[in-house]
Parts: sequence; structure tokens; C-alpha cells
Amino acid sequence: MNYKVIGSSVSRLDGVAKVTGKAKYADDYFEREMLIGKVLRSPYAHAKIRSIDVSKAKNLDGVEAVITYQDLPKIKFATAGHPWTFDEAHRDVEDRLIITDKVRFCGEPVAAVVAIDEIIALKAIKLIDVEYEVLPFVMDQEEAIKEGAPIIHEERQNNIISSFGNEVGDVEIELKEADKVFTGKFNTSTVQHCHLENHSAYAYMESDGRIVIVTSTQIPHIVRRIVGQALGMPWGRIRVIKPYIGGGFGNKQDVVIEPLTAAMTLAVNGRPVRYALTREECFIDTRVRHAMRFTFKTGVTKEGKLLAIDIKNLVNNGAYASHGHSVTMSCGSKFRPLYNFNAIKYEPKTVYTNMPVAGAMRGYGVPQISFALESHLDDIARELNIDPVEFRLKNLVKQNHVDPSSKNVVRSMGLSQCLEKGMELINWNEKKKLYKNQIGSLRHGVGMACFSYFAGTYPVALEAAGARIVMNQDGSVQLQIGATEIGQGSDTIFAQMTSEVLGIPIDMVHVISNQDTDITPFDTGAYASRQTFVTGAAVKKAAMEVKSKVLQFASRKNGLNPEVMDIVDCNVVEKTTGIVVCSLEHIALESFYDRIYSSPITSDTSVNIRTNVVAYGATFAEVEVDIKTGQITVVEIYNIHDSGTIINPMLAEGQVHGGVSMALGYALSEQMIFDEKTGRALNNNLLDYKLQTILDTPNIGSAFVEIPDDAGSFGQKSLGENTTLSPAPAIRNAVLDATGVAFNRIPMNPQRVFEKFKEEGLI
Amino acid sequence: MNYKVIGSSVSRLDGVAKVTGKAKYADDYFEREMLIGKVLRSPYAHAKIRSIDVSKAKNLDGVEAVITYQDLPKIKFATAGHPWTFDEAHRDVEDRLIITDKVRFCGEPVAAVVAIDEIIALKAIKLIDVEYEVLPFVMDQEEAIKEGAPIIHEERQNNIISSFGNEVGDVEIELKEADKVFTGKFNTSTVQHCHLENHSAYAYMESDGRIVIVTSTQIPHIVRRIVGQALGMPWGRIRVIKPYIGGGFGNKQDVVIEPLTAAMTLAVNGRPVRYALTREECFIDTRVRHAMRFTFKTGVTKEGKLLAIDIKNLVNNGAYASHGHSVTMSCGSKFRPLYNFNAIKYEPKTVYTNMPVAGAMRGYGVPQISFALESHLDDIARELNIDPVEFRLKNLVKQNHVDPSSKNVVRSMGLSQCLEKGMELINWNEKKKLYKNQIGSLRHGVGMACFSYFAGTYPVALEAAGARIVMNQDGSVQLQIGATEIGQGSDTIFAQMTSEVLGIPIDMVHVISNQDTDITPFDTGAYASRQTFVTGAAVKKAAMEVKSKVLQFASRKNGLNPEVMDIVDCNVVEKTTGIVVCSLEHIALESFYDRIYSSPITSDTSVNIRTNVVAYGATFAEVEVDIKTGQITVVEIYNIHDSGTIINPMLAEGQVHGGVSMALGYALSEQMIFDEKTGRALNNNLLDYKLQTILDTPNIGSAFVEIPDDAGSFGQKSLGENTTLSPAPAIRNAVLDATGVAFNRIPMNPQRVFEKFKEEGLI
Repeated sequence: MNYKVIGSSVSRLDGVAKVTGKAKYADDYFEREMLIGKVLRSPYAHAKIRSIDVSKAKNLDGVEAVITYQDLPKIKFATAGHPWTFDEAHRDVEDRLIITDKVRFCGEPVAAVVAIDEIIALKAIKLIDVEYEVLPFVMDQEEAIKEGAPIIHEERQNNIISSFGNEVGDVEIELKEADKVFTGKFNTSTVQHCHLENHSAYAYMESDGRIVIVTSTQIPHIVRRIVGQALGMPWGRIRVIKPYIGGGFGNKQDVVIEPLTAAMTLAVNGRPVRYALTREECFIDTRVRHAMRFTFKTGVTKEGKLLAIDIKNLVNNGAYASHGHSVTMSCGSKFRPLYNFNAIKYEPKTVYTNMPVAGAMRGYGVPQISFALESHLDDIARELNIDPVEFRLKNLVKQNHVDPSSKNVVRSMGLSQCLEKGMELINWNEKKKLYKNQIGSLRHGVGMACFSYFAGTYPVALEAAGARIVMNQDGSVQLQIGATEIGQGSDTIFAQMTSEVLGIPIDMVHVISNQDTDITPFDTGAYASRQTFVTGAAVKKAAMEVKSKVLQFASRKNGLNPEVMDIVDCNVVEKTTGIVVCSLEHIALESFYDRIYSSPITSDTSVNIRTNVVAYGATFAEVEVDIKTGQITVVEIYNIHDSGTIINPMLAEGQVHGGVSMALGYALSEQMIFDEKTGRALNNNLLDYKLQTILDTPNIGSAFVEIPDDAGSFGQKSLGENTTLSPAPAIRNAVLDATGVAFNRIPMNPQRVFEKFKEEGLI
Repeated sequence: MNYKVIGSSVSRLDGVAKVTGKAKYADDYFEREMLIGKVLRSPYAHAKIRSIDVSKAKNLDGVEAVITYQDLPKIKFATAGHPWTFDEAHRDVEDRLIITDKVRFCGEPVAAVVAIDEIIALKAIKLIDVEYEVLPFVMDQEEAIKEGAPIIHEERQNNIISSFGNEVGDVEIELKEADKVFTGKFNTSTVQHCHLENHSAYAYMESDGRIVIVTSTQIPHIVRRIVGQALGMPWGRIRVIKPYIGGGFGNKQDVVIEPLTAAMTLAVNGRPVRYALTREECFIDTRVRHAMRFTFKTGVTKEGKLLAIDIKNLVNNGAYASHGHSVTMSCGSKFRPLYNFNAIKYEPKTVYTNMPVAGAMRGYGVPQISFALESHLDDIARELNIDPVEFRLKNLVKQNHVDPSSKNVVRSMGLSQCLEKGMELINWNEKKKLYKNQIGSLRHGVGMACFSYFAGTYPVALEAAGARIVMNQDGSVQLQIGATEIGQGSDTIFAQMTSEVLGIPIDMVHVISNQDTDITPFDTGAYASRQTFVTGAAVKKAAMEVKSKVLQFASRKNGLNPEVMDIVDCNVVEKTTGIVVCSLEHIALESFYDRIYSSPITSDTSVNIRTNVVAYGATFAEVEVDIKTGQITVVEIYNIHDSGTIINPMLAEGQVHGGVSMALGYALSEQMIFDEKTGRALNNNLLDYKLQTILDTPNIGSAFVEIPDDAGSFGQKSLGENTTLSPAPAIRNAVLDATGVAFNRIPMNPQRVFEKFKEEGLI
């Protein structure tokens, strides 16, 4: 296809608003006499609440309400940001109260105060007396499933949330027949999203009793439903408004603070209440990335053909289920359209512990298994003495492959081109030779890793999206989508799609960036790298509908069939000759003001996307390892994608920069640390939690292999999360290449590297 | 029809919000660091601006901008709140600049200041030096058309805006053939709307250069267009938001402060600026009701049959055209489907004067002609010695009458029943006898007057309206309309219509009361008593579409034809048996979450109503006249309507109370007074301008003759303005009945009554 706007690096629509401070975030909205909500948090990781005395707090001047579990509905609800389903077995685990009656992690809310200002609210918090019965606790997933471990949810027999896996082919037989069987154990750590904007919301009650929540969320329509469920209110009586948000990464694909914010306004008769987390609170009481512990057993022919893999995965889910089993399932499924195995067995256990709750985070379980699998494959290639790239190429699935478990079809497959590009960019072959047999204290190595990823959740969950377009008198349009701009640039690419279809410049597409569940078309939200693919289809459909209405007006005017006309540069033209029939503005004016045919042009439509696409890619990295200090420096890194058509190369590059930066931290420095004696977080702040800074970050290279996929409305596949999947194993494999030491745990921070080098005798 | 919700006195949806202060008006919205705009006004009624020196004002600390005509586009624009039209001859007169370069009335803005607060803005205003060349001025419409009168718009030859009248039949011939010919001269005064909330707006520029205006308006979509025209910007780059508003009455069916508010934010690089009028400013620089001067010549048979009427009307339009010719035309046309005349001639002259601008006001020219015509008819009846009611009944048109000028068809006609009801309520026949030949100083009398009124403007202008309905997961819906709630209760009646069609209770219809031109369906706005009739059709259409989608889902479920099902009390039922098929909630959930058929139910639709209806009614009043003081007290008053189906009796009664109260002031006390030497307003405040207070107001009786009109979506016709048309002549006729004195000028305030009584020898 020859596109005009699709594929060009249009500046993001919200760029100026964001750099000039005009963009309004949840904190920028305020109401007269807004109250402030604050929360008392448990100092214990596991405890029963024997009693709470809130009388002193209530009596403090300026305190408007104090809330404990006793004041709230006893309805257990699930918080994960998934569409509701008729299939009860498929619903998320309902294990949560708005405020708990039993503490399951250190920092869990036990009471909330609403006061006229923050100082009074914090003072009141200190006046609440709680008597706890402290219980033994367990932080590690392996410990948590041992006989005699403390039971975290007392209605259950053990701490296993889910152990739903699957098997394709017969792994045992295949392993028996393999020339070689390799095993490997891999560990990933608990990390936090660290979006710039913490969770922040405010709520008030309208005069008809409906509750309005303005919140920093990726999933306004799901927040509406879950708040309704948590409060036992009809869902239509909740209204959720999403302003600009400062990052989400999956942490805002969960309903974290909204039910309590709603409960706060209910407690004060509907007066507006703001509830915003501090960074310290955000670290422990939102969601973290699941720490996973993998055990692989892989059968290979002596020529390096993969036969079968047996994967065991022990997943630390923290105190509540949230996205638990779903992340674990995603982890076990999204890598599958990568390599041909005769048999795959996936045996996960998702386990409650007395840790902060794990949930959705960019990559949704896949960065973990990517690290493990791609490290494991490198170890195998090394053993077999096959070049890692060659090893992977040997085993790649081909176009038209059908993933046996999801039934997703590989309609387009550009991974081999990605690998070619990566080798070229990093100068793979030369460097592989060059870096053999180093002995100095600064050693270099190159590594790579592959990934596959879907776009959206089909066939696991519903993929519905809506779009509405309203044409103005000058031919410009407003575009409303339920899909959410969370910093990724989705508003801009939806505007490009609209601009492309309607033949109008991008500045004539006004995207209504804020979602309001009362009026915004339904969309499940920003997650699963679904929006460009799924919502993009809705946007295209809406724009096509508007175009068709324009051409019908034009047809009435000049007798030409709508099919022989097009809109080009704000004019209705004859397709074949390019002759201008009339201006788009004229049609727009007629649609409003024609005395007989007046019918303002809008489209309010939705799609239900019942297919999926598989995006591919790889990372190539070069590292310099300082053997003496354990410092790993990434010298070069290239993150290469087959995401089908790239709608906006600049934004795509931005996704790569963000995703790789996140992955660098995942690989090298980030880890939440807890006091083993108390279960308390030790580094829940941005000083002690080691995010990668700009000084730690190399130039990040990106490249795109654009093979349009027929299933994408413009040939597009997914990209957002994909960027964060393969850097960690690529770096790990580069370190292996440089030092011969195989790290099977991330982050590879200097302390751990240093210790491992000592252990391995390098120092 | 048997309706469930239509026809019931549902409490107004915004009632609680308004009495608790939760409803947000323009003044309740604020932005951080909002600037304040103020205006310097001319002390002269007519003057050229020789020079303006703003340097001192600009140099004042805290002043961000000073604006004069020199800083603004030189585009003349029209301000009237009419839909745009392709027919150039039909467009409003473009005679206005955002800030003038020549002053045409006392109080006209000559410069604007934007400052960080009001005090500084007011200080800066005083620092602006203007050199005026003072010109002779003219306040009276008769003077203004005399040879040698000052020309107000220098590009014109005289001060006549329009003299477009019409003639049906041959008036001269008919008058010649009449048994008797009566003449009469009638005068009405300049009055102000006095809505509770003055004009108030604020504007800012979005980061993409689009201008957002939050304003107290009846016509957001028209404001968008006119601001675009005034600034020479594409209309789609203007966004107008209408919050709750505190009354409009037509004064906000004009684009009064928005272009300047937009210019203010442009002058400060898009920072938010509030521009709100004080009451004093609102009196002189918004719009007033046209003062009119009628001359009638009427031919009648000796039996009292009306033959012909010749009407001359001299209309004081003030300094700018605004709604000028349109109000004058309405005045000459809306009374026509009342009485059978063989011939009617209407010869108006709409005239510029150096007065505040006259524009739309409840009744749109008809209160004036109602006063004149119904007084004139009473004078004729008195001369012919026919009972006034009998006289009118003798001449009423019948059902199926076609108005020869507008071609509007009288499909329903309940005026004779209204008259019957009025006579009964006030005890007409007995009182007529009782009050004959009084001689005391307190005298009683009864009087009555009729009216007819259309619903909307068809065939004069476009009658387009849109509605959007979005269904929630619980079966509740949001309703969006471009039509505006301005206090009249339209949101509530639209909710009733939706509730009626969808079979859900009223509290499951959530009306989005605020209009936002970016997303709200197009509607021309609140005026011409059009919304219940015109927008009501759009609401019904949208609701029917939603219902049809619900029944299609239900049909897929159970195989029944959609046509044999209905929605009753939130359930889909079989029409004939009433058996419940499934709950509406279940269908709503399926529409969102069905894995195959997901397609959330919405409707985004519009109508173009190409017909009109004629509503009728009458007022019956009893007065007590204090001969010595000239005080007229209204003892009883009944305002009776044939408005077709009454959607909400309580709200209808509210309209009657408001409209009659307004008319009482019009009849008895209200009048703007000007200093003849300077042209300055003398009573532009609520102390000196004599509104009727609650103490002046009798119990106002209302009654409704409900004859459904087939053209109304639920049988409804118009009501809002109708209430204010006939009280003034009814009171005047009652005074005539009581005293024998015919007042041909309103208001009949004690001063004027006293003088007239002296003149007539009563005292």
C-alpha cells in the first residue's frame, strides 16, 4: 500500500501540551474544598486484626471520616484489568476487600482517613490504634508451597492460586529420543514499574448518587465495572474519567486505588476526595512484576534441532491474585510461535506469598521466560558449538505456522530478516571472532535473543474496541476512542489512521484524549500491546464509515457513484482522473445545513477482533565486563522488530528506547529488596531502588523489518511490550560470550556479578 | 397512547444539583492562574474614536494585554443565534466587530484589558485614554428614520435594517368592503431578560492552537461557528462547552461575549481568561427586547367577523442588527394561525438607533404584537358590544387550517377548549356582569387574550437536532443531546422520552447535561420553543434505535422476531403474553462481552424536522385597579395551553409560572429608561429596574388542554415561550373592563396609569 500519513513520523499530538505543562493529569484537576484521603498501613507482613480503635482519629478537628473494613461492603472482588466474561471459570480470582480484615503483606491498608488537608489526615492516621495478632509469614514462592507454610488466604487449603499448564505433543517420549538433553534453572526478581506519575485519583458523588472517579488508569471502562462490583453498585452508576497519565506499564491495568477512593467520597456524602499514593506507597501497594523460577529440560538432536522442552515455573504472586494465573499463562504461551518443538510441556505454579502483589507489567510474564529460555538456548548452542544465531535460525517456525495451543496463525514472519539486520548492525561475525579467548580485566562480548509476541489477547479474552468520529463544518473531525493514551503515543497513531482514510491533514484530526466512560466508546483499554492492532481496526472502520457518508453526499451532488470517488487533500476527487468534484468543507457544510438532507456526519462503531497476529524481534547487545568490579556496561544494543507496518517510525523508536531502557534495569540493576525478618521493603524509593539513569544508558539502536500482516487494518502488528522482552537475555548472553560465565539470575548487578566471578574463580 | 413516563411529573434531574450547589456554572470552573478580562465602555451614545492610548494601561504591573479594534481582525460578523445557511440572502446582517472602531451606543466596548486580577484590570481600564469625536445620536425608531437623522452605520444610506413584510389577500379591497374599520396605535417598551446568571465565559487555547470557550450559552454549536467567523478561524478549531446555565430567555441565543473572550486568550498566548459581565454591563451590553410601535387598521363586518388587518410596525433595534429582521418577521407571522382574515398586510420597519442592541427574547416579537393585537381586538369587541371571548371564538381558525404565509398546517386546535376552561376558571360570565358600571376607587375587571405559536422555526430556518445514547452494562444509558438545558427542564423531558421508549426507570437515564461541541451531537440550541418538539424527535429516534438493537440481541438469543418483543420494566418481554424473555441487563452484558457478537449498543443519530405545529392558548386575568394611585393589582390569572401532549405537568406548570411572571413585569413595571441628553441608561440595575418580586405576584393558575398533535414525536407541541405571550394584553383588557380606559402602551406602571387616569378625567 502507498500510504500518505501511515508510516510517517508525525510528532506526537500531546507533545507540546506535555512539555508546556498544559496537559492535565489527575493531580491537575481540583474541586473546591477537596478533601484528602490517606491510609494507615500494616507494619506486619501477615497478621489478623484483633481490633481497631478509630475514635481518637475521628475526633480530630478537620477529620471528616475514618474507614475500616467494618464500614465497607464484605464483597470480595478481583482487581485485574480484564474484560468481564460470562464464563465463570475464566474470571479472575475474587480475593480482595477494599480494606482488609486480615493483613497479607507489609504495607497493606488497614484504615483510611478523609480530612480537610494532608497534614490533618496524616496526623489522624497516627491516632488509629490497631491490635494485631501477628502471624508467621512467607516471602518465597518455593517456601510457600511447602508443607506447613503459613496459609495466606485462610479459605484455601494451600497457597497455590493456579497450576494450570498444558502440553503439546509428548515431551517424555521426545526427550527420550533426543541426542542430548539440557537442563537449566533460571530466576527473575521482583521489580517495579516506576512510571513517572504515581497512582492518583479523586472521586465525588453526583447529586443523583452516581460516583465519578477521575483516575490515572489504563483501563477506565474496566475500573467502572470493578468499582461497581467492589461497592455492590450497578456498574452504570459509576463514571470513570481518565485524564492524561504519566505512564502505566501495566501497573495501571489493575484497579488499585479506585474502589477505596470511591469509598472515601461515599463516606463523606459525596464530597470530592483526592487519594494519591506517594512513591513509597506506590512501590509496595500497587503491583510488581512476578518473580519467577524456571526449570527447563530440553531435548535436542546432535545437529541442533530442538525436539522438546519441559518447563516448570514457580511464580511468586504476592498476597493477592490480581493478574496471577493470567500472567503465568501468557508467560507459557507467547513464546511458542518462535521455535519448532515437537513437544512442549508447561507446568506452572502461581503461588501466594506475603509479598506485595504481582500483576501486569510490560511483557506480561514474557520478559521472565525470555530471559530464561533465550539464556538456556544460548547455553545449549554453546555446548553444541553452534553460533547462537544459526542455532535459532535452524529452529525458527515458518510463515503459515499455526500455534498448536492458541491456534494463532503466523501470517507474516520477519524474524530471520531481523536476525540478519541485527548481525549486520552489531557486526556479529567479526566481533564473535574478535572477542574469543579474552583474558584482560575488561572483556567484551556479544549476545542476542529472540522473542515472539501477540497483539492483544485473542483467543484468551475478548478483543472489543470502539471509535467515534464527529465531522465539523470545516471537514476537520474529532476522534473519540475508549483506548487510552498512556504515553505510548496511541492518540497520534489513531489520528494518523483517521487522517489517512479521510484524506485530511493530521491537524484536522482532533483526538479527544480523555476517556469518560459515560460517553467514550467502549474499549477494554491499554494492555497486551493491543491498541494499534485492535483499536486501530475500530478507528479505520469508523473513518471508512465517515468517508462513505461524505462520498454519499458528494454522489447526491454530482451523480457519480461513491465508489469512483475518493477524498484527497481535503477535496472529493474522481479516483481515476484526480479531478476535484468539490471540497470536503462543502460536503461538511451540507451535512449540517442542507435544508433537506441535513444529517451531520458521525460514526459511532465498534469491532470485535477475533484473530491475532504474531510479532517477532530480537536484541543484539555488546557488553564490556569489568571483571574486578563486576560492572557490566552495555556498549551497543540493537532492538529489532518485525511489527508489520510501522505506523509512526519516530514513535516506534520511542517505544524501543523506553522498552530497552526498562529492560536494561531489569537485566542489570533493578530489584525490590525486603527485610527477611519483617517482610518490610528496604528500597521502596527511587534513591535505593536502582533504576537505570540516562548516564547508565547507551545509545539504543532500533530497526524495523516491515512486512505488512493482512490481519492488521494497515498491516500492523504489536510493538509496545515487545521492546522489553529480549534485551535482558541478550545482555546475559553477551556476558557469557565475554566471560564464559552463565548468569541464571537477574539483575546482574555488580554485587551479584562480583560474587559469581569469585565463585567461578575469575577473581 | 398509554404512556408510563411521558405525562408524569418526574422531578427535574438537575433539581438536587442546583439546590445543593453541586451544579457547576461557568463561574464555577476555574483554571490555575486564570486571568481576568475587563472592558472599557464608551460614555457616548454615538462617537468616532479618534485615538486610543493604551500605553499607561499596558505598563501597569499585572496587566497582560490590552486590546482595541486595532489588534483584532477587521471581519464584520453577525451575532444572532441562527443556524448558518447556504442562502446568502437569508443570512443575518454582518455589522459587528469584536471591539468597535466607532461607538454606536452608550456602554459599547472600546478596549479590553487582561490582567492577573480584577482590581488591576479595573485600574488599567481607567488608564486608557480615548479621544472621541462625539456625534449626534438618535434613540427613537421614529426619529431614526426621519430625513436628516444621524446615520448609525455609515456604509448605509439610512437606518433601516429591513422592511421586509408581506400581504395575503388584498387588504385595501377588504377594508373598503368592511362594515366598520377600526384603527389603533400601540407601543411596547424596551425590557431586559434579567436571567439570574449574567453572561460569563472563560477561554483558553489548547496546545494545538484550538480555542476552548466555556460559556453560559443557549447555543454552543452556533457560538462555535460565530467565534470562528469573527476571528477568521476554521470553525473546527473552536470548541465550546456549555455548563449549567442560570437562565437565558434568548439573551444567550446570541453570541455576545464569546468572540471577545476568545480574543482575550489569543492576546495572552492561550492562557485562560475569564470574562464575565456585571449586572450593570449585562443590562446595556447584551440584548434587550425590541420596543415596537404598531399601527392597526382592521375591517370587520357588523356581525363581528374579521375581514382584514393592516399592520404597520416600527421596530427599535438598537445599535446592531443581531436578530433584528428575524424577530420582526416572527412578530408578523406567529399570530397568523389564530384568526381567519381574508387579508393581512404586514409592513414592518426594523430600525437602527443608538440604543442597546435588541435581540431574541422569550416570545421573539410575539409578546409585542400579542399586546397590540389582543388589545385592539378587545377595543373592537367593546365597540361592537360583543363579549371578547365570543368575538374571538367567532373568528378562530379551524383544525386543518393552512397558514397561507408559512404553509404550516393546524393539525390540532384546542383553543376553543382553552377559552372554555379559562372562562370557567375565572368565572368569566358572572364577573363580567358583576364588574359592570363600577364607580369606587378600587375597581375590578376581567380580561383575556389569545395567542398562537409555532414549535421551532420551520419553514424559515433549519430544524436539525441530534441525540446519542450509550447503553451501560446494567441496561442504564447515557443520553447526549446538543440541545441545551437552560433551566426550562429539557434534560428531564428528554430523559422521560428515553425512559418511555426503553422501558427503564428515569434514574437509569443519565443525561449528559453539559454540551461540548467537540463531542455532543449537533443541535442548533435552545430557542423558538423547539427542543421538546424538534430535539424530542431525535431523542425518540435514538431510543428506538437502541431498543431495536436490544431486541435484535434478544432475537438471536431466543428466535423470536424483534417485532413481537418489547422492553418493559427492564425486561425483554413477549408483547402479547408479557412473558419475560430475559433481563435487559443480560442483553446489555452480552452486547459488551459476548465473545462472538460483542457490539456495545449505542445510537448516534440526527433528525431534520421539516414540519411545524401550532400551539395555542389564552390568558384570563382579573385586576383590581386603585384609581387614586394608579396601582394595578392582578388578583387572579390563568394561563391555559393547548401544547399537545404535556410531557411533564410539573415542569409545564413551572414554565407557566416563569413565563407569566415575566409577562406581569412586561405589563406592569419593567422598562429600561435612558437619559435623553446623553443616551445613558438610568436604571441598569436590579434596584431601579422594576422586576416583579414574589410579593407582586399573585397565584398563577395553569391549565392544559391536551390534544396530541401527530407531528410531535409524542404528540407534543411548544410551550416555553407561549406562556409569556398573552398575559400583558389580558391584564390590559381587564383594566379596560374595570375602568373603561384603554392603555395602548406598556408597562402600565402607576406613574403612567395615574397620568392617563388624570388625562381621561377619572381623577
